[in-house]
Amino acid sequence: MIAMPEALRTVDVVRVRGGRRAAESDSAATEEPLEVRLHGQPFAVIMRTPGADRELAAGFLLAERVITGADDLGTIAHCTDPAASHPENIVDVTLVNGSAAAVERLLAGRRQVTTTASCGMCGRRTIESLAADVTPLRAAWSVPSAVIVALPAQLRARQAVFDETGGLHAAGLFTRDGRLVDVAEDVGRHNAVDKIVGRRLMREELPLADFLLFVSGRTSFEIVQKAIYAGIPIVAAVSAPSTLAIELAEACGVTLVGFVRGDAFNIYTHPERVAE
Amino acid sequence: MIAMPEALRTVDVVRVRGGRRAAESDSAATEEPLEVRLHGQPFAVIMRTPGADRELAAGFLLAERVITGADDLGTIAHCTDPAASHPENIVDVTLVNGSAAAVERLLAGRRQVTTTASCGMCGRRTIESLAADVTPLRAAWSVPSAVIVALPAQLRARQAVFDETGGLHAAGLFTRDGRLVDVAEDVGRHNAVDKIVGRRLMREELPLADFLLFVSGRTSFEIVQKAIYAGIPIVAAVSAPSTLAIELAEACGVTLVGFVRGDAFNIYTHPERVAE
Repeated sequence: MIAMPEALRTVDVVRVRGGRRAAESDSAATEEPLEVRLHGQPFAVIMRTPGADRELAAGFLLAERVITGADDLGTIAHCTDPAASHPENIVDVTLVNGSAAAVERLLAGRRQVTTTASCGMCGRRTIESLAADVTPLRAAWSVPSAVIVALPAQLRARQAVFDETGGLHAAGLFTRDGRLVDVAEDVGRHNAVDKIVGRRLMREELPLADFLLFVSGRTSFEIVQKAIYAGIPIVAAVSAPSTLAIELAEACGVTLVGFVRGDAFNIYTHPERVAE
Repeated sequence: MIAMPEALRTVDVVRVRGGRRAAESDSAATEEPLEVRLHGQPFAVIMRTPGADRELAAGFLLAERVITGADDLGTIAHCTDPAASHPENIVDVTLVNGSAAAVERLLAGRRQVTTTASCGMCGRRTIESLAADVTPLRAAWSVPSAVIVALPAQLRARQAVFDETGGLHAAGLFTRDGRLVDVAEDVGRHNAVDKIVGRRLMREELPLADFLLFVSGRTSFEIVQKAIYAGIPIVAAVSAPSTLAIELAEACGVTLVGFVRGDAFNIYTHPERVAE
Protein backbone atom coordinates (compact mmCIF):
# COMPACT_ATOMS: atom_id res chain seq x y z
CA MET A 1 0.00 0.00 0.00
CA ILE A 2 1.12 3.49 -0.80
CA ALA A 3 0.63 5.97 2.00
CA MET A 4 -1.84 8.50 0.64
CA PRO A 5 -1.51 12.16 1.55
CA GLU A 6 -4.34 13.59 3.59
CA ALA A 7 -6.95 15.88 2.06
CA LEU A 8 -6.24 18.34 4.85
CA ARG A 9 -3.05 19.46 6.50
CA THR A 10 -2.48 21.47 9.62
CA VAL A 11 -0.65 24.72 8.96
CA ASP A 12 0.69 27.45 11.21
CA VAL A 13 -0.92 30.84 10.80
CA VAL A 14 -0.63 34.24 12.37
CA ARG A 15 -4.21 35.22 13.13
CA VAL A 16 -4.78 38.97 13.11
CA ARG A 17 -8.03 40.27 14.53
CA GLY A 18 -8.72 43.87 15.42
CA GLY A 19 -5.00 44.52 15.10
CA ARG A 20 -4.03 41.85 17.66
CA ARG A 21 -1.88 38.92 16.55
CA ALA A 22 -1.89 35.33 17.72
CA ALA A 23 -0.02 32.23 16.56
CA GLU A 24 -2.60 29.57 15.72
CA SER A 25 -3.05 26.34 13.83
CA ASP A 26 -5.40 26.05 10.91
CA SER A 27 -6.37 23.40 8.38
CA ALA A 28 -5.65 23.90 4.68
CA ALA A 29 -6.90 21.88 1.74
CA THR A 30 -4.14 19.74 0.30
CA GLU A 31 -3.10 20.50 -3.27
CA GLU A 32 -0.61 18.16 -4.92
CA PRO A 33 0.27 17.39 -8.52
CA LEU A 34 -1.06 14.12 -9.95
CA GLU A 35 0.83 12.84 -12.95
CA VAL A 36 -1.34 10.79 -15.29
CA ARG A 37 0.69 8.34 -17.36
CA LEU A 38 -0.49 6.41 -20.39
CA HIS A 39 1.30 3.07 -20.73
CA GLY A 40 4.03 4.37 -18.45
CA GLN A 41 4.58 7.63 -20.35
CA PRO A 42 3.73 11.07 -18.90
CA PHE A 43 0.49 12.39 -20.39
CA ALA A 44 -0.71 15.19 -18.11
CA VAL A 45 -0.29 16.65 -14.67
CA ILE A 46 -3.35 17.78 -12.72
CA MET A 47 -3.19 19.85 -9.54
CA ARG A 48 -5.60 18.08 -7.24
CA THR A 49 -6.55 17.18 -3.69
CA PRO A 50 -5.31 13.62 -3.04
CA GLY A 51 -8.00 10.97 -2.84
CA ALA A 52 -9.93 9.14 -5.57
CA ASP A 53 -6.91 9.55 -7.81
CA ARG A 54 -7.73 6.65 -10.10
CA GLU A 55 -11.27 7.93 -10.44
CA LEU A 56 -9.97 11.42 -11.18
CA ALA A 57 -7.68 10.04 -13.87
CA ALA A 58 -10.54 8.08 -15.44
CA GLY A 59 -12.88 11.08 -15.43
CA PHE A 60 -10.15 13.33 -16.78
CA LEU A 61 -9.39 10.96 -19.65
CA LEU A 62 -13.10 10.77 -20.46
CA ALA A 63 -13.35 14.57 -20.59
CA GLU A 64 -10.22 14.66 -22.76
CA ARG A 65 -11.80 12.09 -25.11
CA VAL A 66 -8.81 9.79 -24.68
CA ILE A 67 -11.42 7.24 -23.65
CA THR A 68 -15.14 7.26 -24.33
CA GLY A 69 -16.17 4.70 -21.74
CA ALA A 70 -15.14 1.82 -19.52
CA ASP A 71 -14.56 -0.42 -22.54
CA ASP A 72 -11.50 1.65 -23.44
CA LEU A 73 -9.95 1.35 -19.99
CA GLY A 74 -7.49 -1.43 -19.37
CA THR A 75 -5.78 -0.96 -16.03
CA ILE A 76 -5.53 2.11 -13.86
CA ALA A 77 -3.26 2.00 -10.84
CA HIS A 78 -0.93 4.04 -8.72
CA CYS A 79 2.67 3.87 -9.80
CA THR A 80 4.63 0.87 -8.56
CA ASP A 81 7.98 2.05 -9.92
CA PRO A 82 10.39 1.75 -6.98
CA ALA A 83 12.42 4.62 -8.45
CA ALA A 84 9.52 7.10 -8.29
CA SER A 85 10.05 9.57 -5.46
CA HIS A 86 6.31 10.23 -5.03
CA PRO A 87 4.46 7.16 -6.36
CA GLU A 88 1.31 8.35 -4.59
CA ASN A 89 1.23 11.26 -7.05
CA ILE A 90 1.41 9.11 -10.17
CA VAL A 91 -1.36 7.06 -11.77
CA ASP A 92 -0.59 4.82 -14.73
CA VAL A 93 -3.34 3.98 -17.20
CA THR A 94 -3.35 1.38 -19.92
CA LEU A 95 -5.88 1.50 -22.72
CA VAL A 96 -7.65 -1.51 -24.17
CA ASN A 97 -6.99 -1.75 -27.88
CA GLY A 98 -4.43 0.97 -27.33
CA SER A 99 -1.96 0.07 -30.02
CA ALA A 100 1.57 1.30 -29.50
CA ALA A 101 1.08 3.69 -32.41
CA ALA A 102 -2.20 5.10 -31.07
CA VAL A 103 -0.76 5.67 -27.61
CA GLU A 104 2.30 7.26 -29.17
CA ARG A 105 0.07 9.67 -31.10
CA LEU A 106 -1.79 10.64 -27.94
CA LEU A 107 1.48 11.21 -26.14
CA ALA A 108 3.19 13.09 -28.95
CA GLY A 109 1.08 16.19 -28.50
CA ARG A 110 1.28 16.09 -24.74
CA ARG A 111 4.86 15.39 -23.91
CA GLN A 112 6.01 18.94 -24.19
CA VAL A 113 3.01 20.15 -22.25
CA THR A 114 3.98 17.92 -19.40
CA THR A 115 7.67 18.47 -19.40
CA THR A 116 7.78 22.18 -20.12
CA ALA A 117 5.00 23.31 -17.83
CA SER A 118 3.17 24.91 -20.68
CA CYS A 119 -0.44 24.07 -19.88
CA GLY A 120 -1.96 27.19 -18.36
CA MET A 121 -4.31 25.67 -15.84
CA CYS A 122 -2.78 22.38 -14.87
CA GLY A 123 0.19 23.52 -12.81
CA ARG A 124 2.98 21.10 -13.30
CA ARG A 125 6.25 22.32 -11.99
CA THR A 126 7.26 21.19 -8.63
CA ILE A 127 8.07 23.85 -6.12
CA GLU A 128 11.68 22.78 -6.25
CA SER A 129 12.06 23.42 -9.96
CA LEU A 130 10.04 26.60 -9.76
CA ALA A 131 11.98 27.96 -6.82
CA ALA A 132 15.19 27.26 -8.71
CA ASP A 133 13.83 29.22 -11.65
CA VAL A 134 13.00 32.48 -9.87
CA THR A 135 14.66 34.92 -7.53
CA PRO A 136 12.88 34.90 -4.16
CA LEU A 137 11.04 38.16 -3.55
CA ARG A 138 12.92 40.29 -1.06
CA ALA A 139 10.79 43.43 -0.72
CA ALA A 140 11.50 44.83 2.76
CA TRP A 141 8.46 47.05 3.17
CA SER A 142 5.43 46.25 5.26
CA VAL A 143 1.81 47.34 5.47
CA PRO A 144 -0.33 47.97 8.55
CA SER A 145 -3.14 45.49 9.11
CA ALA A 146 -5.61 48.30 8.43
CA VAL A 147 -4.53 48.21 4.78
CA ILE A 148 -5.28 44.48 4.58
CA VAL A 149 -8.74 44.62 6.11
CA ALA A 150 -9.71 47.47 3.77
CA LEU A 151 -8.98 45.48 0.60
CA PRO A 152 -12.32 43.64 0.12
CA ALA A 153 -14.56 46.70 0.29
CA GLN A 154 -12.40 48.57 -2.19
CA LEU A 155 -12.38 45.70 -4.66
CA ARG A 156 -16.12 45.25 -4.38
CA ALA A 157 -16.78 48.93 -4.97
CA ARG A 158 -14.87 48.73 -8.23
CA GLN A 159 -16.29 45.44 -9.42
CA ALA A 160 -18.45 46.58 -12.25
CA VAL A 161 -19.98 43.25 -13.12
CA PHE A 162 -19.79 40.92 -10.16
CA ASP A 163 -22.66 42.27 -8.12
CA GLU A 164 -25.00 41.92 -11.06
CA THR A 165 -24.28 38.31 -11.99
CA GLY A 166 -22.38 36.63 -9.16
CA GLY A 167 -20.50 34.93 -11.96
CA LEU A 168 -17.16 36.69 -12.14
CA HIS A 169 -13.95 36.46 -10.17
CA ALA A 170 -12.06 39.67 -9.52
CA ALA A 171 -8.45 40.57 -8.86
CA GLY A 172 -7.17 43.95 -7.73
CA LEU A 173 -3.76 45.56 -7.63
CA PHE A 174 -3.10 47.83 -4.65
CA THR A 175 -0.31 50.20 -3.71
CA ARG A 176 1.59 49.86 -0.43
CA ASP A 177 -0.70 52.43 1.17
CA GLY A 178 -3.76 50.46 0.14
CA ARG A 179 -4.90 52.39 -2.91
CA LEU A 180 -6.62 50.29 -5.58
CA VAL A 181 -4.97 51.01 -8.92
CA ASP A 182 -6.32 48.26 -11.17
CA VAL A 183 -9.15 45.73 -11.28
CA ALA A 184 -9.87 42.85 -13.65
CA GLU A 185 -12.84 40.52 -13.75
CA ASP A 186 -13.21 37.20 -15.47
CA VAL A 187 -15.07 33.90 -15.29
CA GLY A 188 -11.62 32.43 -14.64
CA ARG A 189 -9.84 33.67 -11.55
CA HIS A 190 -6.45 32.93 -13.09
CA ASN A 191 -7.44 35.07 -16.05
CA ALA A 192 -8.26 38.00 -13.79
CA VAL A 193 -4.70 37.90 -12.44
CA ASP A 194 -3.22 37.47 -15.92
CA LYS A 195 -5.12 40.55 -17.13
CA ILE A 196 -3.70 42.71 -14.34
CA VAL A 197 -0.16 41.44 -14.69
CA GLY A 198 -0.31 41.58 -18.48
CA ARG A 199 -1.44 45.20 -18.46
CA ARG A 200 1.55 46.22 -16.32
CA LEU A 201 3.89 44.12 -18.39
CA MET A 202 2.75 45.90 -21.55
CA ARG A 203 3.49 49.21 -19.82
CA GLU A 204 6.97 47.92 -18.94
CA GLU A 205 6.19 48.23 -15.22
CA LEU A 206 7.31 44.79 -14.07
CA PRO A 207 8.40 43.77 -11.48
CA LEU A 208 5.51 44.98 -9.34
CA ALA A 209 7.65 45.02 -6.22
CA ASP A 210 5.69 47.82 -4.53
CA PHE A 211 2.20 46.35 -4.91
CA LEU A 212 -0.24 43.95 -3.26
CA LEU A 213 -2.44 41.55 -5.20
CA PHE A 214 -5.91 40.80 -3.82
CA VAL A 215 -8.18 38.10 -5.27
CA SER A 216 -11.85 37.44 -4.64
CA GLY A 217 -11.68 33.68 -4.23
CA ARG A 218 -9.28 31.03 -3.06
CA THR A 219 -5.54 31.00 -3.56
CA SER A 220 -4.10 28.13 -5.56
CA PHE A 221 -0.53 27.26 -6.46
CA GLU A 222 -1.00 29.02 -9.78
CA ILE A 223 -2.16 32.33 -8.34
CA VAL A 224 1.01 32.47 -6.22
CA GLN A 225 3.10 31.41 -9.21
CA LYS A 226 1.72 34.27 -11.29
CA ALA A 227 2.43 36.74 -8.49
CA ILE A 228 6.02 35.52 -8.25
CA TYR A 229 6.61 35.93 -11.98
CA ALA A 230 5.21 39.45 -11.72
CA GLY A 231 7.33 40.20 -8.65
CA ILE A 232 4.38 40.95 -6.32
CA PRO A 233 5.48 40.32 -2.70
CA ILE A 234 2.06 40.26 -0.95
CA VAL A 235 -0.91 38.16 -2.08
CA ALA A 236 -4.18 38.34 -0.15
CA ALA A 237 -7.51 36.61 -0.73
CA VAL A 238 -11.06 36.49 0.56
CA SER A 239 -10.86 32.73 1.00
CA ALA A 240 -8.46 29.93 1.82
CA PRO A 241 -5.11 29.06 0.26
CA SER A 242 -4.16 25.51 -0.67
CA THR A 243 -1.21 23.75 0.92
CA LEU A 244 0.81 24.09 -2.27
CA ALA A 245 0.08 27.81 -2.49
CA ILE A 246 1.41 28.15 1.07
CA GLU A 247 4.52 26.08 0.36
CA LEU A 248 5.32 27.99 -2.81
CA ALA A 249 4.80 31.36 -1.12
CA GLU A 250 7.07 30.30 1.74
CA ALA A 251 9.80 29.11 -0.61
CA CYS A 252 9.71 32.18 -2.86
CA GLY A 253 9.39 34.99 -0.34
CA VAL A 254 5.72 35.86 -0.86
CA THR A 255 3.58 37.01 2.05
CA LEU A 256 0.35 35.02 1.73
CA VAL A 257 -2.78 36.29 3.47
CA GLY A 258 -6.19 34.58 3.50
CA PHE A 259 -9.70 34.86 4.91
CA VAL A 260 -9.70 38.65 4.83
CA ARG A 261 -13.10 39.22 6.40
CA GLY A 262 -14.34 41.95 8.69
CA ASP A 263 -11.46 43.11 10.88
CA ALA A 264 -9.61 39.78 10.71
CA PHE A 265 -7.31 37.78 8.46
CA ASN A 266 -4.74 34.97 8.53
CA ILE A 267 -1.09 35.33 7.54
CA TYR A 268 0.28 32.03 6.22
CA THR A 269 3.81 33.00 5.20
CA HIS A 270 6.33 35.79 5.70
CA PRO A 271 4.30 37.72 8.30
CA GLU A 272 7.07 40.32 8.58
CA ARG A 273 5.42 42.28 5.77
CA VAL A 274 2.38 42.98 7.92
CA ALA A 275 3.33 45.52 10.57
CA GLU A 276 2.33 44.77 14.13
CA MET B 1 -12.37 48.62 -34.68
CA ILE B 2 -13.57 45.16 -33.84
CA ALA B 3 -16.87 45.05 -31.98
CA MET B 4 -16.06 43.53 -28.61
CA PRO B 5 -18.52 41.20 -26.93
CA GLU B 6 -19.95 42.47 -23.67
CA ALA B 7 -18.81 41.09 -20.34
CA LEU B 8 -22.45 40.47 -19.49
CA ARG B 9 -25.34 39.16 -21.51
CA THR B 10 -29.04 39.09 -20.80
CA VAL B 11 -30.43 35.59 -20.66
CA ASP B 12 -33.95 34.20 -20.22
CA VAL B 13 -34.54 32.19 -17.07
CA VAL B 14 -37.42 30.45 -15.42
CA ARG B 15 -37.35 31.68 -11.85
CA VAL B 16 -38.76 29.17 -9.37
CA ARG B 17 -39.50 30.37 -5.87
CA GLY B 18 -41.57 28.50 -3.32
CA GLY B 19 -42.77 26.26 -6.15
CA ARG B 20 -44.08 29.16 -8.27
CA ARG B 21 -42.55 29.79 -11.69
CA ALA B 22 -42.02 33.03 -13.55
CA ALA B 23 -40.29 33.87 -16.83
CA GLU B 24 -37.63 36.47 -16.10
CA SER B 25 -34.51 38.02 -17.54
CA ASP B 26 -31.15 37.71 -15.84
CA SER B 27 -27.56 38.72 -16.52
CA ALA B 28 -24.89 36.08 -17.05
CA ALA B 29 -21.13 36.52 -17.20
CA THR B 30 -19.85 36.12 -20.72
CA GLU B 31 -17.48 33.22 -21.38
CA GLU B 32 -15.88 32.99 -24.81
CA PRO B 33 -12.77 31.24 -26.13
CA LEU B 34 -9.73 33.43 -26.81
CA GLU B 35 -7.24 31.95 -29.23
CA VAL B 36 -3.71 33.15 -28.59
CA ARG B 37 -1.53 32.96 -31.69
CA LEU B 38 2.25 33.25 -31.88
CA HIS B 39 3.39 34.75 -35.16
CA GLY B 40 0.04 33.83 -36.69
CA GLN B 41 0.07 30.20 -35.49
CA PRO B 42 -2.37 28.82 -32.89
CA PHE B 43 -0.65 28.47 -29.51
CA ALA B 44 -3.40 28.15 -26.91
CA VAL B 45 -7.09 28.75 -26.33
CA ILE B 46 -8.26 30.28 -23.07
CA MET B 47 -11.89 30.38 -21.94
CA ARG B 48 -12.30 33.95 -20.73
CA THR B 49 -14.61 36.90 -20.25
CA PRO B 50 -14.01 39.29 -23.16
CA GLY B 51 -12.20 42.50 -22.30
CA ALA B 52 -8.49 43.23 -21.77
CA ASP B 53 -7.72 40.42 -24.20
CA ARG B 54 -4.28 41.67 -25.13
CA GLU B 55 -3.43 42.09 -21.46
CA LEU B 56 -4.71 38.58 -20.76
CA ALA B 57 -2.56 37.17 -23.54
CA ALA B 58 0.50 39.00 -22.24
CA GLY B 59 -0.04 37.83 -18.68
CA PHE B 60 -0.74 34.29 -19.84
CA LEU B 61 2.47 34.17 -21.88
CA LEU B 62 4.42 35.46 -18.88
CA ALA B 63 2.95 32.73 -16.66
CA GLU B 64 3.77 30.17 -19.35
CA ARG B 65 7.36 31.47 -19.48
CA VAL B 66 7.05 32.10 -23.22
CA ILE B 67 8.10 35.64 -22.32
CA THR B 68 9.86 36.85 -19.20
CA GLY B 69 9.07 40.54 -19.57
CA ALA B 70 8.11 43.37 -21.88
CA ASP B 71 11.43 43.15 -23.70
CA ASP B 72 10.35 39.85 -25.23
CA LEU B 73 7.06 41.24 -26.54
CA GLY B 74 6.95 42.57 -30.09
CA THR B 75 3.39 43.25 -31.13
CA ILE B 76 0.16 42.04 -29.58
CA ALA B 77 -3.06 42.75 -31.42
CA HIS B 78 -6.48 41.38 -32.23
CA CYS B 79 -6.61 39.38 -35.41
CA THR B 80 -7.01 41.39 -38.61
CA ASP B 81 -7.42 38.38 -40.89
CA PRO B 82 -10.57 39.12 -42.93
CA ALA B 83 -11.19 35.37 -43.20
CA ALA B 84 -11.47 34.90 -39.43
CA SER B 85 -15.08 34.37 -38.41
CA HIS B 86 -14.55 35.74 -34.88
CA PRO B 87 -11.51 38.03 -34.99
CA GLU B 88 -12.53 39.48 -31.63
CA ASN B 89 -11.67 36.09 -30.12
CA ILE B 90 -8.16 35.90 -31.57
CA VAL B 91 -5.04 37.74 -30.38
CA ASP B 92 -1.83 37.47 -32.36
CA VAL B 93 1.49 37.96 -30.59
CA THR B 94 4.91 38.42 -32.09
CA LEU B 95 8.03 37.94 -30.04
CA VAL B 96 11.10 40.13 -30.19
CA ASN B 97 14.13 38.04 -31.06
CA GLY B 98 11.65 35.25 -31.78
CA SER B 99 13.54 33.42 -34.44
CA ALA B 100 11.47 31.27 -36.75
CA ALA B 101 13.06 28.20 -35.19
CA ALA B 102 12.36 29.30 -31.62
CA VAL B 103 8.73 30.08 -32.37
CA GLU B 104 8.41 26.77 -34.17
CA ARG B 105 9.73 24.96 -31.11
CA LEU B 106 7.21 26.72 -28.87
CA LEU B 107 4.40 25.85 -31.22
CA ALA B 108 5.45 22.26 -31.76
CA GLY B 109 4.38 21.16 -28.32
CA ARG B 110 1.19 23.16 -28.38
CA ARG B 111 -0.33 22.58 -31.75
CA GLN B 112 -2.01 19.34 -30.85
CA VAL B 113 -3.24 20.81 -27.59
CA THR B 114 -4.98 23.52 -29.49
CA THR B 115 -6.38 21.51 -32.30
CA THR B 116 -7.37 18.37 -30.43
CA ALA B 117 -8.86 19.97 -27.38
CA SER B 118 -6.57 18.07 -25.11
CA CYS B 119 -5.76 20.71 -22.48
CA GLY B 120 -7.90 19.90 -19.48
CA MET B 121 -8.71 23.34 -18.21
CA CYS B 122 -8.64 25.58 -21.23
CA GLY B 123 -11.83 24.55 -22.99
CA ARG B 124 -11.19 24.70 -26.67
CA ARG B 125 -13.88 23.19 -28.72
CA THR B 126 -16.55 25.40 -29.99
CA ILE B 127 -20.09 24.46 -29.13
CA GLU B 128 -20.70 23.63 -32.75
CA SER B 129 -17.96 21.02 -32.94
CA LEU B 130 -18.82 19.66 -29.53
CA ALA B 131 -22.52 19.41 -30.30
CA ALA B 132 -21.65 17.55 -33.48
CA ASP B 133 -19.55 15.14 -31.43
CA VAL B 134 -22.18 14.05 -28.91
CA THR B 135 -25.72 12.79 -28.93
CA PRO B 136 -28.00 15.36 -27.26
CA LEU B 137 -29.32 14.11 -23.94
CA ARG B 138 -32.95 13.08 -24.29
CA ALA B 139 -33.91 11.88 -20.80
CA ALA B 140 -37.66 12.41 -20.50
CA TRP B 141 -38.00 12.31 -16.72
CA SER B 142 -38.47 15.32 -14.49
CA VAL B 143 -37.96 16.18 -10.83
CA PRO B 144 -40.16 18.26 -8.55
CA SER B 145 -38.69 21.58 -7.47
CA ALA B 146 -38.55 20.23 -3.91
CA VAL B 147 -35.75 17.90 -5.04
CA ILE B 148 -33.74 20.83 -6.40
CA VAL B 149 -34.03 23.03 -3.32
CA ALA B 150 -32.95 20.13 -1.09
CA LEU B 151 -29.65 19.59 -2.92
CA PRO B 152 -27.40 22.11 -1.11
CA ALA B 153 -28.16 20.93 2.42
CA GLN B 154 -27.53 17.32 1.48
CA LEU B 155 -24.22 18.10 -0.17
CA ARG B 156 -23.08 20.20 2.73
CA ALA B 157 -23.96 17.49 5.24
CA ARG B 158 -21.71 15.08 3.39
CA GLN B 159 -18.85 17.47 2.76
CA ALA B 160 -16.25 16.08 5.05
CA VAL B 161 -13.62 18.71 4.52
CA PHE B 162 -15.17 21.92 3.27
CA ASP B 163 -16.56 23.24 6.49
CA GLU B 164 -13.22 22.91 8.16
CA THR B 165 -11.09 24.72 5.58
CA GLY B 166 -13.34 26.63 3.22
CA GLY B 167 -10.86 25.56 0.60
CA LEU B 168 -12.51 22.75 -1.30
CA HIS B 169 -15.08 22.57 -4.03
CA ALA B 170 -17.62 19.77 -3.88
CA ALA B 171 -19.71 17.91 -6.43
CA GLY B 172 -22.53 15.51 -5.65
CA LEU B 173 -24.36 12.90 -7.69
CA PHE B 174 -28.08 12.55 -6.88
CA THR B 175 -30.78 10.11 -7.93
CA ARG B 176 -34.00 11.29 -9.57
CA ASP B 177 -35.73 11.26 -6.21
CA GLY B 178 -33.05 13.47 -4.71
CA ARG B 179 -30.94 10.94 -2.86
CA LEU B 180 -27.23 11.78 -2.64
CA VAL B 181 -25.25 8.76 -3.81
CA ASP B 182 -21.75 10.15 -4.23
CA VAL B 183 -19.65 13.16 -3.20
CA ALA B 184 -16.20 14.32 -4.24
CA GLU B 185 -14.17 17.25 -2.97
CA ASP B 186 -11.16 18.92 -4.50
CA VAL B 187 -9.31 22.21 -4.68
CA GLY B 188 -10.34 22.16 -8.34
CA ARG B 189 -14.04 22.12 -9.06
CA HIS B 190 -13.47 20.38 -12.38
CA ASN B 191 -11.59 17.66 -10.52
CA ALA B 192 -14.49 17.07 -8.16
CA VAL B 193 -16.72 16.35 -11.17
CA ASP B 194 -14.07 14.17 -12.81
CA LYS B 195 -13.76 12.09 -9.63
CA ILE B 196 -17.49 11.38 -9.54
CA VAL B 197 -17.77 10.60 -13.23
CA GLY B 198 -14.59 8.55 -13.21
CA ARG B 199 -15.79 6.41 -10.32
CA ARG B 200 -18.98 5.52 -12.20
CA LEU B 201 -17.07 4.93 -15.39
CA MET B 202 -14.80 2.45 -13.63
CA ARG B 203 -17.94 0.63 -12.43
CA GLU B 204 -19.21 0.56 -16.02
CA GLU B 205 -22.23 2.64 -15.02
CA LEU B 206 -22.09 5.29 -17.74
CA PRO B 207 -24.20 6.93 -19.10
CA LEU B 208 -25.59 8.44 -15.89
CA ALA B 209 -28.93 9.14 -17.55
CA ASP B 210 -30.96 8.86 -14.32
CA PHE B 211 -28.90 11.22 -12.17
CA LEU B 212 -28.49 14.89 -11.30
CA LEU B 213 -25.12 16.57 -10.80
CA PHE B 214 -24.87 19.33 -8.21
CA VAL B 215 -21.77 21.50 -7.79
CA SER B 216 -20.86 23.90 -5.01
CA GLY B 217 -19.64 26.78 -7.15
CA ARG B 218 -20.24 28.32 -10.53
CA THR B 219 -20.99 26.46 -13.73
CA SER B 220 -18.52 26.88 -16.57
CA PHE B 221 -18.53 25.50 -20.08
CA GLU B 222 -16.33 22.65 -18.91
CA ILE B 223 -18.59 21.49 -16.10
CA VAL B 224 -21.44 21.15 -18.60
CA GLN B 225 -19.13 19.45 -21.07
CA LYS B 226 -18.15 16.84 -18.48
CA ALA B 227 -21.82 16.21 -17.63
CA ILE B 228 -22.62 15.69 -21.30
CA TYR B 229 -19.84 13.16 -21.76
CA ALA B 230 -21.12 11.34 -18.69
CA GLY B 231 -24.71 11.50 -19.95
CA ILE B 232 -26.07 13.46 -16.95
CA PRO B 233 -29.21 15.37 -18.04
CA ILE B 234 -29.58 17.81 -15.10
CA VAL B 235 -26.78 20.04 -13.77
CA ALA B 236 -27.46 22.33 -10.82
CA ALA B 237 -25.18 24.72 -8.95
CA VAL B 238 -25.10 27.02 -5.96
CA SER B 239 -23.92 29.91 -8.10
CA ALA B 240 -24.17 31.35 -11.58
CA PRO B 241 -23.52 29.72 -14.96
CA SER B 242 -21.51 31.41 -17.69
CA THR B 243 -23.04 32.26 -21.05
CA LEU B 244 -21.13 29.45 -22.72
CA ALA B 245 -22.32 26.93 -20.13
CA ILE B 246 -25.89 28.00 -20.91
CA GLU B 247 -25.38 27.80 -24.67
CA LEU B 248 -23.77 24.38 -24.48
CA ALA B 249 -26.49 23.04 -22.17
CA GLU B 250 -29.17 24.37 -24.52
CA ALA B 251 -27.53 22.80 -27.56
CA CYS B 252 -26.92 19.42 -25.96
CA GLY B 253 -30.16 18.84 -24.08
CA VAL B 254 -28.92 19.51 -20.54
CA THR B 255 -31.21 21.13 -17.98
CA LEU B 256 -29.06 23.80 -16.33
CA VAL B 257 -30.09 25.15 -12.93
CA GLY B 258 -28.31 27.88 -10.96
CA PHE B 259 -28.52 29.93 -7.78
CA VAL B 260 -30.07 27.12 -5.76
CA ARG B 261 -30.55 29.02 -2.50
CA GLY B 262 -33.28 28.76 0.11
CA ASP B 263 -36.54 27.83 -1.62
CA ALA B 264 -35.57 29.36 -4.96
CA PHE B 265 -33.51 28.66 -8.07
CA ASN B 266 -33.19 29.65 -11.74
CA ILE B 267 -33.65 27.28 -14.67
CA TYR B 268 -31.54 28.40 -17.64
CA THR B 269 -32.20 25.63 -20.16
CA HIS B 270 -34.65 22.79 -20.78
CA PRO B 271 -37.02 23.62 -17.93
CA GLU B 272 -39.25 20.69 -18.88
CA ARG B 273 -37.18 18.47 -16.57
CA VAL B 274 -38.34 20.41 -13.52
CA ALA B 275 -41.99 19.54 -12.86
CA GLU B 276 -44.36 22.42 -12.25
